[in-house]
Amino acid sequence: MRVTTFGEIMLRLTVPDNKKLIQTDTFQANYGGAEANVAVSLALLGDSVNFVSKLPENELGNAVIQKLKSFGVDTSAISRGGNRLGIYFLQPGIGNRPSKVIYDRGESSFTASDDSDYPWKQLLNETDYFYISGITPALSDKLKATLLSAVEFCRNHAIKVVYDANFRGKLWTPARAQQFNRQILPFVDICLVHDEDLEQAFGLQAFKSTNHQAIDQKASFKQAMSTLTAHYPNISTVASVLRNSHSVQSSQWMGVMLTGDSFYESPIYNVAILPEVAGGDAFGAAIVHGILNHFKPQYQLDYAIAAAVLKLTIPGDFNLSSDGEIKAAMIDDNQTISR
Amino acid sequence: MRVTTFGEIMLRLTVPDNKKLIQTDTFQANYGGAEANVAVSLALLGDSVNFVSKLPENELGNAVIQKLKSFGVDTSAISRGGNRLGIYFLQPGIGNRPSKVIYDRGESSFTASDDSDYPWKQLLNETDYFYISGITPALSDKLKATLLSAVEFCRNHAIKVVYDANFRGKLWTPARAQQFNRQILPFVDICLVHDEDLEQAFGLQAFKSTNHQAIDQKASFKQAMSTLTAHYPNISTVASVLRNSHSVQSSQWMGVMLTGDSFYESPIYNVAILPEVAGGDAFGAAIVHGILNHFKPQYQLDYAIAAAVLKLTIPGDFNLSSDGEIKAAMIDDNQTISR
Amino acid sequence: MRVTTFGEIMLRLTVPDNKKLIQTDTFQANYGGAEANVAVSLALLGDSVNFVSKLPENELGNAVIQKLKSFGVDTSAISRGGNRLGIYFLQPGIGNRPSKVIYDRGESSFTASDDSDYPWKQLLNETDYFYISGITPALSDKLKATLLSAVEFCRNHAIKVVYDANFRGKLWTPARAQQFNRQILPFVDICLVHDEDLEQAFGLQAFKSTNHQAIDQKASFKQAMSTLTAHYPNISTVASVLRNSHSVQSSQWMGVMLTGDSFYESPIYNVAILPEVAGGDAFGAAIVHGILNHFKPQYQLDYAIAAAVLKLTIPGDFNLSSDGEIKAAMIDDNQTISR
Amino acid sequence: MRVTTFGEIMLRLTVPDNKKLIQTDTFQANYGGAEANVAVSLALLGDSVNFVSKLPENELGNAVIQKLKSFGVDTSAISRGGNRLGIYFLQPGIGNRPSKVIYDRGESSFTASDDSDYPWKQLLNETDYFYISGITPALSDKLKATLLSAVEFCRNHAIKVVYDANFRGKLWTPARAQQFNRQILPFVDICLVHDEDLEQAFGLQAFKSTNHQAIDQKASFKQAMSTLTAHYPNISTVASVLRNSHSVQSSQWMGVMLTGDSFYESPIYNVAILPEVAGGDAFGAAIVHGILNHFKPQYQLDYAIAAAVLKLTIPGDFNLSSDGEIKAAMIDDNQTISR
Amino acid sequence: MRVTTFGEIMLRLTVPDNKKLIQTDTFQANYGGAEANVAVSLALLGDSVNFVSKLPENELGNAVIQKLKSFGVDTSAISRGGNRLGIYFLQPGIGNRPSKVIYDRGESSFTASDDSDYPWKQLLNETDYFYISGITPALSDKLKATLLSAVEFCRNHAIKVVYDANFRGKLWTPARAQQFNRQILPFVDICLVHDEDLEQAFGLQAFKSTNHQAIDQKASFKQAMSTLTAHYPNISTVASVLRNSHSVQSSQWMGVMLTGDSFYESPIYNVAILPEVAGGDAFGAAIVHGILNHFKPQYQLDYAIAAAVLKLTIPGDFNLSSDGEIKAAMIDDNQTISR
Amino acid sequence: MRVTTFGEIMLRLTVPDNKKLIQTDTFQANYGGAEANVAVSLALLGDSVNFVSKLPENELGNAVIQKLKSFGVDTSAISRGGNRLGIYFLQPGIGNRPSKVIYDRGESSFTASDDSDYPWKQLLNETDYFYISGITPALSDKLKATLLSAVEFCRNHAIKVVYDANFRGKLWTPARAQQFNRQILPFVDICLVHDEDLEQAFGLQAFKSTNHQAIDQKASFKQAMSTLTAHYPNISTVASVLRNSHSVQSSQWMGVMLTGDSFYESPIYNVAILPEVAGGDAFGAAIVHGILNHFKPQYQLDYAIAAAVLKLTIPGDFNLSSDGEIKAAMIDDNQTISR
Repeated sequence: MRVTTFGEIMLRLTVPDNKKLIQTDTFQANYGGAEANVAVSLALLGDSVNFVSKLPENELGNAVIQKLKSFGVDTSAISRGGNRLGIYFLQPGIGNRPSKVIYDRGESSFTASDDSDYPWKQLLNETDYFYISGITPALSDKLKATLLSAVEFCRNHAIKVVYDANFRGKLWTPARAQQFNRQILPFVDICLVHDEDLEQAFGLQAFKSTNHQAIDQKASFKQAMSTLTAHYPNISTVASVLRNSHSVQSSQWMGVMLTGDSFYESPIYNVAILPEVAGGDAFGAAIVHGILNHFKPQYQLDYAIAAAVLKLTIPGDFNLSSDGEIKAAMIDDNQTISR
Repeated sequence: MRVTTFGEIMLRLTVPDNKKLIQTDTFQANYGGAEANVAVSLALLGDSVNFVSKLPENELGNAVIQKLKSFGVDTSAISRGGNRLGIYFLQPGIGNRPSKVIYDRGESSFTASDDSDYPWKQLLNETDYFYISGITPALSDKLKATLLSAVEFCRNHAIKVVYDANFRGKLWTPARAQQFNRQILPFVDICLVHDEDLEQAFGLQAFKSTNHQAIDQKASFKQAMSTLTAHYPNISTVASVLRNSHSVQSSQWMGVMLTGDSFYESPIYNVAILPEVAGGDAFGAAIVHGILNHFKPQYQLDYAIAAAVLKLTIPGDFNLSSDGEIKAAMIDDNQTISR
Repeated sequence: MRVTTFGEIMLRLTVPDNKKLIQTDTFQANYGGAEANVAVSLALLGDSVNFVSKLPENELGNAVIQKLKSFGVDTSAISRGGNRLGIYFLQPGIGNRPSKVIYDRGESSFTASDDSDYPWKQLLNETDYFYISGITPALSDKLKATLLSAVEFCRNHAIKVVYDANFRGKLWTPARAQQFNRQILPFVDICLVHDEDLEQAFGLQAFKSTNHQAIDQKASFKQAMSTLTAHYPNISTVASVLRNSHSVQSSQWMGVMLTGDSFYESPIYNVAILPEVAGGDAFGAAIVHGILNHFKPQYQLDYAIAAAVLKLTIPGDFNLSSDGEIKAAMIDDNQTISR
Repeated sequence: MRVTTFGEIMLRLTVPDNKKLIQTDTFQANYGGAEANVAVSLALLGDSVNFVSKLPENELGNAVIQKLKSFGVDTSAISRGGNRLGIYFLQPGIGNRPSKVIYDRGESSFTASDDSDYPWKQLLNETDYFYISGITPALSDKLKATLLSAVEFCRNHAIKVVYDANFRGKLWTPARAQQFNRQILPFVDICLVHDEDLEQAFGLQAFKSTNHQAIDQKASFKQAMSTLTAHYPNISTVASVLRNSHSVQSSQWMGVMLTGDSFYESPIYNVAILPEVAGGDAFGAAIVHGILNHFKPQYQLDYAIAAAVLKLTIPGDFNLSSDGEIKAAMIDDNQTISR
Repeated sequence: MRVTTFGEIMLRLTVPDNKKLIQTDTFQANYGGAEANVAVSLALLGDSVNFVSKLPENELGNAVIQKLKSFGVDTSAISRGGNRLGIYFLQPGIGNRPSKVIYDRGESSFTASDDSDYPWKQLLNETDYFYISGITPALSDKLKATLLSAVEFCRNHAIKVVYDANFRGKLWTPARAQQFNRQILPFVDICLVHDEDLEQAFGLQAFKSTNHQAIDQKASFKQAMSTLTAHYPNISTVASVLRNSHSVQSSQWMGVMLTGDSFYESPIYNVAILPEVAGGDAFGAAIVHGILNHFKPQYQLDYAIAAAVLKLTIPGDFNLSSDGEIKAAMIDDNQTISR
Repeated sequence: MRVTTFGEIMLRLTVPDNKKLIQTDTFQANYGGAEANVAVSLALLGDSVNFVSKLPENELGNAVIQKLKSFGVDTSAISRGGNRLGIYFLQPGIGNRPSKVIYDRGESSFTASDDSDYPWKQLLNETDYFYISGITPALSDKLKATLLSAVEFCRNHAIKVVYDANFRGKLWTPARAQQFNRQILPFVDICLVHDEDLEQAFGLQAFKSTNHQAIDQKASFKQAMSTLTAHYPNISTVASVLRNSHSVQSSQWMGVMLTGDSFYESPIYNVAILPEVAGGDAFGAAIVHGILNHFKPQYQLDYAIAAAVLKLTIPGDFNLSSDGEIKAAMIDDNQTISR
């Protein structure tokens, strides 16, 4: 079984030592992007995975490939060329100060790429699962078209499509997102929807109250997920992380999953609010890993939420947790982990 | 409207990485002092402000001026000369270990300065608000005299005086502080009193119980503030941060303000105990900013406590928060902030 | 009054910045080991102490000696020679990710040492207390024999033996530990037993429930400690740290001590879970310090738990807290410390 | 007397610790650009200077302004808006490995700016000298037009134009550069020409031999400079740094200047090859400083080459040398400096 | 064409910032070893290469594999198990202070490995060149036997053997080295001999004078190399770096090569004495790369010395220079490189 | 044989990474001072040495003592109290930029100390050599008196006095230095005179030409040293480092010594100009070490210059070279060292 993930990977420049950007004269550098993060997770868990993207023909592009190869991701299908590697600056939050992101991804090699860079027939030849996210279509119309041609190819060649809605308000509006998603959802087999995705990306109401504590509103999330699969019966599984944020020091995380008619809930984790990102990508990768390795649904979900929570403890975008470490972090229902 | 702040600015040498001083072979360096911190806050919020002080004629003095200028503070009235820049070493606390400060500010250019360094007539010519604190009179008798001549000048020229009591037990005794404060309070228009100030600096009882949780004793603080304005009817506004410390991981912060007969209370913030300083200076600056910009009292107070809480997240003495960031951190009453 | 501690000291290489080992290209380096940690604590508290061990004849051995001397530990009895300094890699935990230790201590100069390296008659000549731990016998059979000959010497020369059970599951099995401990316990005067020690090292049941929250099971710990002294009436004092771990952000620590028939309990400290180690060594050193300086039992225990809690805030293996700092950290019963 | 400099300022991300880019996970960050560097030099030397450019409306733009203000540059005329701040990555060379630059400056706010961003009539109102370089016209046709309209304004308002040829082979070809320079040179009063500029930017032969040691070919540089002023009699002064590179550890630097009919030569400095940049900008700023302050030509040139050589010792793009430090670094003819 | 390299790879812990080991509390960490360095060089130059060794089954072993994979080395044949990863501490020299190495490689997984860990028949199945060095036989008798069985397999299967003599005085004596080398040299096709190797490892006199400036004694090196191939006609090529060290700031490097009857000499490079290592491995890898890619002998040698000289500028053990960078560093005979 | 050294030790705050002070937000911290440096050198070489000074009763004072103890210096005679630890800021030079020192040592505990802090009778009870320098009398009149009473005590008790002239133009004038030195020289047995000392501190002409290359003017140094011992026949030995500075990359160092009538010269070392300090203290310590250990004069001098040259390679003020490392760095006459 082989997975192909497709999307943009960027240089992340992180302000260190709790400083604000205007205070720093150094940046931490790492490389990441939703679909690349998923590829790394899968490779580290022992699955066969290649990453498709377009990178500039310079040292920054080389550095990306070197990093991906180090974790065992197949990078041979990455297209080279174009102007530049996309960058984003991250000023991590602390205490009552939220994280701040500055995108500098315009005119990147990936954003400017199009169908001609991705010969899907050849690229997806040996693939069983094709993993994409709602970030890519937000970047350009050409990438919208590329994605649609790719999922159509998948439909025709029995390749399962995993779609992480991943709504980004800095890249497009809910209206434009919903318009595109109505086009792609008929091709999707497994759908990931975190946070605002059901509402912003799909136009389904999930938050009934104003406080936006998702775990407290589990029932309405379940309702919205059921509505989704009713509309798109091709979607066999919908999964989501739900979060409550109680104070500056603590939040709670859980996973929910609708598979066919069955609704699964993971245990709830107490989580210190750490400044790291990409917990959702770790969750999505683990959901796919569970499918590839025939995990039972409840175990698959419990494994995925443990992977997500562990990711938050690891600097950078990649979830460097091993299978053993994820299993050790899994907890019984209604029980907090103790160290 | 223009503000002049007057006081000492020092080099702070901070022990990094949670080490103790005897473990470190590096120090983090920044520059700060109560009144300079206020000047930087006001400049960043767009107010016109100059800072008056005395600095040595060497690279350290140059570095202070460069930093202040970078944030837009007018430094043209700073006197140069004298022996040295004051220094303080900060060993930040963590967990159950409290922060420790070692003052090395003796014989500084500012401490040794006197009235001849500060031609008030010229310095305060275009000023509307004069911001000072109880640290300056604690440094020398000459500075006591300088301060008193300055506030007398202000009284005669309709310049409002803002006085932050800022009692420092390492610099003088409560008895000596109270003696001086009886001289200066008749000239004060706006008075800031945090923590122990009402008791140590003014001789008014604020803590009725031994546990020193100020929010729990809000009523007696209100009482003491009323007593203060009854004694000194020239004081139109008294404001204070109140704090509860519940455990090593959490405290609560709120602001209270008495303006004329009206007593205002801000919402309460849950705050992780961070090792940073100068929350009170950020509060004081924001109170003044509110006056300059005609904020309504409740909004002024809510804005000020948000500024104070944000400051704790920023390394160094200066509150580098923008107006937009402070507004985004403001919360409704009885509601904790969520990220 | 003079204390001799005997054991291995290693180079600790710590992964910095919350990274995983595979992410780092730097290590923090410090030196530590249970018995050396105790020696440093005692020296810093003003007691006379020497440390006995074996170190390689190279720069790493020199560095260890330099560090110990800097804190006032007498290093003149350390044997030099053998192959190498033991190393352990520490990947500190954060949030839901536990700490991970990789031992690289095989074939160290100390592990390969034997009785001929330690002329006890000469080394213990002026000693009043001999401090050892259950780590040493876990390293080799030769060290088991060395320890037994040393404690026999102590018995014959009225030197008190302090034994910290310090069970390490990575070094030996409970069965082998219990077998050895049956041999050494008849020579022990003061016994320290943390965490799993009563069960793993001595075969006594302390945890009655599965949740392993020791403070909640104080009664059964007391029972097990009484059983121990009933078996070995030579043991005049048994002391232990007990811990509850409630969530990723908080735990509770207390100390308990059985001296003769009297059972003492310290106040309970709220402790943020910090990634540091060696709180137990700080506790043990403080217990011994209390004996040397004739502290009353309750004060001795309260002092020791404050020392342990402070240690967790200090990077490295050594507790660099002064007597004044420990006293300042002591709290009344049922009262949390406030900053 | 007031100077206005106009051009692009970028974020420079420097690979630290002699690493290659693919090895690093941190970058040193500073801000610089030829014309901004000149502005900082002049401000530090006490001249009145403003910098005109266009910066994005985000934290990176704010950081640039903060830095410029800290050194006393007037930033009030900087336009805000557009997509992004230009970036360049610098991998400094060492030993036999040359430095490598990766430009990531496409679509920057400055590159995309045009005449409408720069109301020259208002911006140059109080200016006496307008400082520009050949980098700006290489960026876009709109900037070529902007520059030409600006220098025409200068000609009509008796503002002297200083033009640093600054040929950049990564931005345009010699042919395109020469075509533009034929348009602008008739407006130039003071012309700076380093290294390849006479040949690449102006089409004049300066290097007669293949070894490209400029000091050894001083005579032909002098010849080419005379040819330039013969063609463009409006150019009153031409100045250049000349360099010999003898080995990986040493090079030699000198300055030459043609003013009217007089040719001046500075002493020759022995210079270790340091990985820093912007020596030419420091030279140009000092030439202008000399004019503003009525230095005699020989002293002006000697001062400028000392400034250039000092700059190489200072990390970042700005020459933070004071007037006193530059004077102390000046040497007599034919004499090397000793420490 | 495929290369297999076989040997030990270790963790190198480097003292940073020109400190001595006893001053540091951090170490730089990288992984390296002669044969692994060669593998990385070849992979980066585009050749197909796998590395055979034995690594412990822990995070340190994982980190080694991750690093090798990142550069494209095939790590699938690496055996896992044993006690530990070998370590060496490097205290780099500066000025008149030489570098110092402390080996801590005893009992490593590789040192304790034997023939059963390396099924040569399977491992060398598709290999054309087998690259080994004189470090491996110095580690243990079992590794001597393993090497001899491997080269015998090579002889029988037309696999060329490249042997870098790499004498290490800290691991064995010249007498023992010469004894082993007499056994292996009959199986060697290409032989690399740097510095003392001809004398210490092979017993041939190369240095005629006491000053040990190898370039000055090129003739006697040539003589010794001819003697070697006369004894072992199976050796088709002998190559060596020769060095002169003139002062603390400069040395000179050249390469010499005897192929059949032809003796080749590279140009001479002026090299600042940098504290890095593994120039010889870069040279050896480039010699092999030249063979694989059919370089003419003179070009092959010139390319190899440029690779060696570039390596010295790159932190860590691996030569991360690209083919383009090596070519750019190549100089004409008798000409120093200029930047 | 025991040595006592007496003088000030300060906190040195060094600007890192070749930055200027106004660029840095970190400082490297170490502790040093001429006489403390000598004490550390002697202790590391195995001699018995105590250091006498006065330090403040705070963490900075504790840190100094900890550092001295770590190297084996007896610190038991250090007086505690007073205001502060002296500080000096060091901005190291690079290339053509010289080092810059900012003293912040006014009102230090040592500077304010007097005879009552130093009970010489008791402190010098077991001492054979008393090591002082011309820095101490430059600090205050009270310290002048203290020094004179100490050397008088030495004269009366057969303790040899070693005096390093150590003229500091930032602390006093040549006239004042010469006045004091006329008082102390009659008590001196061994005199160290580097650089400008003969001229500035003693009023003897040593530099005959303006270029201040001391090695080139060896004859006139010899002449001045003879004049000194003719005036003060109590001085049995005069020793000095002589330096030539040829360029920014290289200088030459040698030692000269006059003992009785015999004049000794060391070999000449080529030295890269490193930014470190305290080579002269290392030289002085080694001269004393040679006396204590009965080195022959030529060997003593050769050893001392090797120690001085090695010191320059070691960060901080202390010469951490071992006896073995010094011996390895010794070179034959007229021969440069090779690595």
